[in-house]
Amino acid sequence: MNNESTRKLFREAMAYLSAAVNIITTDGPRGRCGMTASAVCSVTDTPPTMLVCVNQSSSAHAVLAGNGNVCINVLPADHQELARHFAGMTNLPMSARFEQQTWTAGRLGLPVLADALASLEGRIVDTKTVGSHSVMFVEVADIVVRGDGDSLIYFGRHFHRLARTAPELC
Amino acid sequence: MNNESTRKLFREAMAYLSAAVNIITTDGPRGRCGMTASAVCSVTDTPPTMLVCVNQSSSAHAVLAGNGNVCINVLPADHQELARHFAGMTNLPMSARFEQQTWTAGRLGLPVLADALASLEGRIVDTKTVGSHSVMFVEVADIVVRGDGDSLIYFGRHFHRLARTAPELC
Repeated sequence: MNNESTRKLFREAMAYLSAAVNIITTDGPRGRCGMTASAVCSVTDTPPTMLVCVNQSSSAHAVLAGNGNVCINVLPADHQELARHFAGMTNLPMSARFEQQTWTAGRLGLPVLADALASLEGRIVDTKTVGSHSVMFVEVADIVVRGDGDSLIYFGRHFHRLARTAPELC
Repeated sequence: MNNESTRKLFREAMAYLSAAVNIITTDGPRGRCGMTASAVCSVTDTPPTMLVCVNQSSSAHAVLAGNGNVCINVLPADHQELARHFAGMTNLPMSARFEQQTWTAGRLGLPVLADALASLEGRIVDTKTVGSHSVMFVEVADIVVRGDGDSLIYFGRHFHRLARTAPELC
């Protein structure tokens, strides 16, 4: 199941798998960069580990892999425009993308978005190649959690705001 | 970073990483079962591959791994109650969980939820152990995509409905 029509159907199905929007940052010998990513998930809390799927053809791939560290910044709903910048949809140069909001240096020295819902800095402890992508396993070394803020979600090929307040009925 | 307080902080951070809610089903020599899961993501479309993180201590783990196949059913917003059943939150026996909604047999013979936003049947082609969890890589063999329906999302330890219609402004 690997022809163009099935890939198209797969992408259609994935468009309806809602996902949080994150900016994955890195800094180190290979330079500083960031990329918007929704293929991010929690793996285990023993030890605290997440995974990020990164296209090998993306410019960020070599930088992330070369530096060997990442910060996963979970975006609040207000940062749709920032998500577009770091997705390369606005053609803003990398350095200018970091000037759009307040970033601080985290405990590992990585770019931490000041008002992310959560920021998780860690080391890439393992990488698995699957077709066009690398699955990077990140053991988390430092965590900052913000106490408020709505969620930014990508669903049906659009950004959406999801309120933090508990719904009365779903 | 692997003591109880950091694990607690990690779980707090993960509570604010919104995720679609899915029911992962299987059928075969080890029996039929299903489990609610949000640690599911797309890996690559070449070939169409997803991953699912499953706790090794869950009763479904051996059944999924033993059968070697899964169907990932992406839930619509109306199925919060079904998500609770398959998460084991209602103590409903497994056979009764499958009586709550309409399930059909997919092309691989797996339980396909009739009104899932998308259903993806496939084979577990690889498994990676990370701490307490197994990351199962699923090469997709058959896909059904529904043309409507809102998304069911888990965010801030609550279920939420996210409308399919495109937002005016996020």
